[in-house]
Amino acid sequence: MTMRRISGGVTAAKGFRAASCAAGIKYQGRTDMAMLVSDVPCAVAGTFTTNKVKAAPVLWDMGIVYGEKTAQAVVVNAGIANAATGPEGLRLCEGTAAFAGETLGIPPRAVLLGSTGVIGPQIPLDRITAGVRMMAGVLSDTQEAGTAASRAIMTTDTVNKEFAVAFDLPTASGEGTVTVHLGGMSKGSGMIHPNMCTMLGYITTDCAIDQALLQQALSAVVPDTFNMITVDGDTSTNDTLLVLANGLAGNAPITAADEGYGLFCEALFSVCRDLAVKMAGDGEGATRLIETNVKNCDTKENAKAFAKAVVGSSLVKAMVFGRDANCGRILCALGYAGPDFDPAKIEVYLVGDEDTVCFYKDGQVQAFDEERALAILSADHVRFDCDMQTGECGATAWGCDLTYDYVKINGDYRS
Amino acid sequence: MTMRRISGGVTAAKGFRAASCAAGIKYQGRTDMAMLVSDVPCAVAGTFTTNKVKAAPVLWDMGIVYGEKTAQAVVVNAGIANAATGPEGLRLCEGTAAFAGETLGIPPRAVLLGSTGVIGPQIPLDRITAGVRMMAGVLSDTQEAGTAASRAIMTTDTVNKEFAVAFDLPTASGEGTVTVHLGGMSKGSGMIHPNMCTMLGYITTDCAIDQALLQQALSAVVPDTFNMITVDGDTSTNDTLLVLANGLAGNAPITAADEGYGLFCEALFSVCRDLAVKMAGDGEGATRLIETNVKNCDTKENAKAFAKAVVGSSLVKAMVFGRDANCGRILCALGYAGPDFDPAKIEVYLVGDEDTVCFYKDGQVQAFDEERALAILSADHVRFDCDMQTGECGATAWGCDLTYDYVKINGDYRS
Repeated sequence: MTMRRISGGVTAAKGFRAASCAAGIKYQGRTDMAMLVSDVPCAVAGTFTTNKVKAAPVLWDMGIVYGEKTAQAVVVNAGIANAATGPEGLRLCEGTAAFAGETLGIPPRAVLLGSTGVIGPQIPLDRITAGVRMMAGVLSDTQEAGTAASRAIMTTDTVNKEFAVAFDLPTASGEGTVTVHLGGMSKGSGMIHPNMCTMLGYITTDCAIDQALLQQALSAVVPDTFNMITVDGDTSTNDTLLVLANGLAGNAPITAADEGYGLFCEALFSVCRDLAVKMAGDGEGATRLIETNVKNCDTKENAKAFAKAVVGSSLVKAMVFGRDANCGRILCALGYAGPDFDPAKIEVYLVGDEDTVCFYKDGQVQAFDEERALAILSADHVRFDCDMQTGECGATAWGCDLTYDYVKINGDYRS
Repeated sequence: MTMRRISGGVTAAKGFRAASCAAGIKYQGRTDMAMLVSDVPCAVAGTFTTNKVKAAPVLWDMGIVYGEKTAQAVVVNAGIANAATGPEGLRLCEGTAAFAGETLGIPPRAVLLGSTGVIGPQIPLDRITAGVRMMAGVLSDTQEAGTAASRAIMTTDTVNKEFAVAFDLPTASGEGTVTVHLGGMSKGSGMIHPNMCTMLGYITTDCAIDQALLQQALSAVVPDTFNMITVDGDTSTNDTLLVLANGLAGNAPITAADEGYGLFCEALFSVCRDLAVKMAGDGEGATRLIETNVKNCDTKENAKAFAKAVVGSSLVKAMVFGRDANCGRILCALGYAGPDFDPAKIEVYLVGDEDTVCFYKDGQVQAFDEERALAILSADHVRFDCDMQTGECGATAWGCDLTYDYVKINGDYRS
């Protein structure tokens, strides 16, 4: 049986428990902390923000992912980012990990951390420790516990984001196959323009896989998923994506880039893409998901540059919000994306579920039926196809429209 | 006497006449065409958009600036950009130049062209020729005619933009000095993220200067002026900046990079900076000009990257609109700008006319008086100073806030 979608998120894989609580770090009347714990130590892989100003928990996690390469728990808070907080912010990380480690009976360096929210303020350690204590008592491997965790890490997100898949691998004994699970959750709505990584994302799997291959798989998948979305072009200080693999599925451990590794990569890609697209569609203030497919391009790198320029253009984003078929803006974005192309050869289409409108070909904007274009632009998911006619490579990028609410949310984020 | 500001714009220099008219190309009830004519042929220099999709008039002007290097008139229309219009768009340019040349008694290749507005539609040649005919009859060297021309080329601009200076150079005979004038106009409000050039800008001077030096001066000044502004990160298909020098001031021609050339560059910088800052402050929907000064940086290139990242950040722009002193967003923008720096060493200030607030130093966001920050953020001109502590180079960039009106204007631009 091939890979299939299953319900749930971070607790879909065997041996992972989750909990959440209302720690009152900044938000009132909602949960704002989540914890993930594996029954056994996990191989861990991660990718992190390329922003030069890295939040304290990012620095902490990088130390573990590049150092120990193994971990057993994750503690996350929403509301305050613990970024630009100096030595005190780093001490908060040490204190959190020490307390969580003691509470869970694992080493402090087996505890990964994540924070998201406003940059600058310090997080009170006593609220974090109170939260960890509460959560340690209610850890659960149910789907509901995973879903509650995905809600607790939201900031300006309007929906929680989780996704899981299952696939089959040979058993460790070599007889028959066993089902392996891989699921994750993520949050992200503003300050979204991941570069080498994304906002907070946590993926768990019961697959037995070598840590180096786990990192290799993650590093291979992220450039085509999380790094292909943008909300506002602002790469956060806190972007963190972690994968924890505890090996409890009972599969023959993946130790080489073989068929099983290929299946694992496919599953990881599926989860990463779903979470990434959900983040793009839930961009701050967004009413529509924008997808741009670049086809027949000379290199994949160039295809990516074109696709990202279109979904990142403020003018394209505003036009989608206004459902205005101002196709010249797509041409303009392709034109400043960087790579060279011949404007006389390319073709641009507006693609709906049941209809397609040609915006541009033969070097000029085409006459099109405004009513048909309006109908396609009115859907929740708006897609542009750009045929560059220079080769055989392609790429897809996702973004969202630019709305009054984006301005409203970000004109007064702190209060 | 050193350089001084004078009133006027494109007609401030001797021997330049301007006209404008309502040609009804797209807008109704307002002027939408402008024409500039010099009494004698001019040395011409220009910089153009780096967008791969170049509008037809950009291609036309590039041919003249890189070919003949001399011209005598400029014909500009607002409303339709003549971009992504294929061979028909190029024929429109040829037809316009042929008709204007015949009407003015100059060669077609002495006529420079400019268009701004919506991308895609074709411009009807008969309206353009009717406009040229009307304008040819009312050309005037008055300040009012220049100002009217600067109004006729506006699209979503809310104010016209012109600026002029005068300075003194030795006479051609070598006895005493003569006053040289340099003035310009520009338009630009949306799709503003000039790269090697700007939106439409036309600068005239009666200075006698070698064409190669004229181009050298322009190319030296643009990177620090027009290329340091951004409204929305979208580099237009039509960006064009032209300087016409007719030599009628009577100065000893500038033929080397001497003291006179230095004075000319200073004057050109002054005009370009003023027009550029006016465009940034008049960004679509903008309520405030944002200025970012980067100081003590290792290289000028890096200083520029930092300054442009801050003024280009959607989150910084929205925060200025909301007068929310969310200083972490400036840190975040510096962090993803590209160049390396030590977050523990830099300092960031919010600078007002009479007060300064420290946002960040010693590796952390500082406590500051919210009332004082609000007062500074409430001014029309908001300034951030970033001290990178890595060297002695600096740069300044200008942008504007992100407002509901930007979204409104661009959600429905075509109608």
